[in-house]
Order: sequence, then structure tokens, then C-alpha cells
Amino acid sequence: MKMLQDKIRVDGKVLSENVLKVDSFLNHQIDPALMQAIGEEYAARFKDAGITKILTLESSGIAPAMMTGLVLGVPAVFARKRKSLTLIDHLYTASVYSYTKNETNDISVSKDFITNEDTVLIIDDFLANGQAVLGLLDIVEQAGSKLAGVGIVIEKGFQPGGKMIRERGIRLESLAEIASLENGEVTFVGEGSDR
Amino acid sequence: MKMLQDKIRVDGKVLSENVLKVDSFLNHQIDPALMQAIGEEYAARFKDAGITKILTLESSGIAPAMMTGLVLGVPAVFARKRKSLTLIDHLYTASVYSYTKNETNDISVSKDFITNEDTVLIIDDFLANGQAVLGLLDIVEQAGSKLAGVGIVIEKGFQPGGKMIRERGIRLESLAEIASLENGEVTFVGEGSDR
Repeated sequence: MKMLQDKIRVDGKVLSENVLKVDSFLNHQIDPALMQAIGEEYAARFKDAGITKILTLESSGIAPAMMTGLVLGVPAVFARKRKSLTLIDHLYTASVYSYTKNETNDISVSKDFITNEDTVLIIDDFLANGQAVLGLLDIVEQAGSKLAGVGIVIEKGFQPGGKMIRERGIRLESLAEIASLENGEVTFVGEGSDR
Repeated sequence: MKMLQDKIRVDGKVLSENVLKVDSFLNHQIDPALMQAIGEEYAARFKDAGITKILTLESSGIAPAMMTGLVLGVPAVFARKRKSLTLIDHLYTASVYSYTKNETNDISVSKDFITNEDTVLIIDDFLANGQAVLGLLDIVEQAGSKLAGVGIVIEKGFQPGGKMIRERGIRLESLAEIASLENGEVTFVGEGSDR
């Protein structure tokens, strides 16, 4: 997706060979027009998949998930990273290890909102080691929902998450796939083409 | 806002005289079309305020804040509830006590995204005791930004937050103001009128 690649190139900050900071438009400050374009892109790519629910994880997945839901005309559900006082029973839960934060969080989704009648599109902001997506896949499986696929805004192609998900036969659509952050520069997979 | 009141009446769950659960459309599952209508409503109410940034708090404020930013054509910034590893310096911070969770969180916003050149609209999903709004006001003040006002999706009018904010002379726009949750029923302030 060229608009997203351009934004990453102009406003992304390469902090190390593994860390790309996109706080100015995706996961601290949000560019709503870019999120709308992302929603339209996912909706176009998955238009024939019969999606009934978008599933994401708080907080940075909410913006792209909601815009995709808006375009497709379906609700977006965000998994929570811990239980709230008004939601203690009736939950699907999974554990997600964060390499960035070196901690494990339980994520949970109410059984009211994902069921065996749903066809679910999982959306998240980043894909690196794939742990968050694995947790969301676990919840989709517990719910007995049909999985349409996984939509990722930025995939770090040099980390193992993407390969792991594709090897399971899951449809994975990454809007920007980064080949390398070496030498302080962002290089995209298929550089030059409009992925 | 009648569409919102109707949604609360049909899908909100009164758990006690203090607790209204709106997990089915606002703070776990999100109704994107309702969020769009909320964004349009805030944009209309604040259209002459010269707003340059929307400021909210993760996670439940993100959806209405982003839709308001989309309609107004400005970015939305969400304060984080704790520091991330890629954001350790260069922050505005404030402490927010949660009566629901009985805990205090630090919230933070990067100094890159709210400045003394901004006119800020604060948006949040709920207003009860007003602690989250106080924390966001603190950040706006630290940044030296101009404050356009505060937009709340659901105000619990029987709790003290709204009065406290209005008494400071701050413009507060609540799209649904609840007078009471007694007897398991939602009663709105100005019931019958289209607020």
C-alpha cells in the first residue's frame, strides 16, 4: 500500500535494526485519514470473505480495526489486556508474551461478541514475532468462529511471525512489509512495487 | 444525541445504581457507524473552535476520538497508561486515580504531539468522577495548548465529574447525560428532548 509506505518512509523513525517507531501516525498519534485508507484497503482485499466481525487487541489495533469495520459495515471487537471488574466471567482468554516488554499478558474477549456464527478478520498494527496474533487466533478457535484471515498494518518481514502464520495456511495481508531496518533505513519487501 | 440515547436504552446493561455496561457498542465491541455519528456530532458542536488536535486516553476513548479527528481533519492523540520502552523521555505525564479499579496510573503524552500551538479537544468515553479528564487537562496545561473543551460520550450526571469540570469554566459537551440508573433503568437528564 503505497500511501502507507510513503508515510513510513517520511514519518517513521528507525531506532535500531529491530525497532521502527511510528508514534506520529499509528500508535500514539493517529492519522485518521490514513486509517480510513487502511480500512478501505482491507475491506477491498477481504470483500468476498463474508466477514461479520473484526477482532483486534487494545490499544494500537483499535483505529485500523474500527475503520475496517466501518467500511465493511460490521462491528470491531478489541481484546483487553486484563480483566475489568465488570467482566469477570464469560470470557475467552489467551496468554500473549511480549518480546518488547518482556512480559506476559492475559488477553480476553467476552463470549457475547465472538461466536461460532462469526467469520472473523483479525487486524493488528504490527507483526514481529507473532505472539499477539497467536493469542487472537486462539480466541477465534475457542469461539468456533470461521477465520477469514489476518490483516497487519506493518509486518517486520525479517522477524518470524509472518512466516509462522503463513505456514499454518492462514491468509495474511500485510499492508507494508519491511525487509530491513539496517543502516537506519527502511527497506520494503518488493521495494518499488505498490504492495 | 438521540441515536446514542436509543443505543444505550436498547443495548446498555444496568449492573447497579452506579454501573452502566456498554461493552456491546463502546468499550469492548465497537459500533463503527455509531462512532462515526459521534464524530460528526462533536465536529458540528466544535466546528468554530479552531481545533488542531484531539486528545484522549487509551483504550475506550480511541474510537470516538479518531472519528472526530477524521471529520475535523485533524490528528487524534491517545495518552498511554504507562510508559513504553521506545518512549522514555520527552513526555508530559499526569497521575489518574481510577475509582472503578482502585488504582492510580500514570498517563503520558509525547511532547512531539501536543504543543503550545495546538487547540485541543479532549474526548473520553465516560465521565463519572472526572479523574481521567483532570489528568488530560493537566497535560494540556503542561503543553501550554489552548483548550477548546471536553467531549464526553456518556456522562453519569449523578457523579461529581461533570459539575467539577463545568465549575472551572470549561466547555463540556456530553452526548448522553444520565440522571439515574436506579431500579435497573436508565434515565437521561432532559429525558424526552434530543440532547
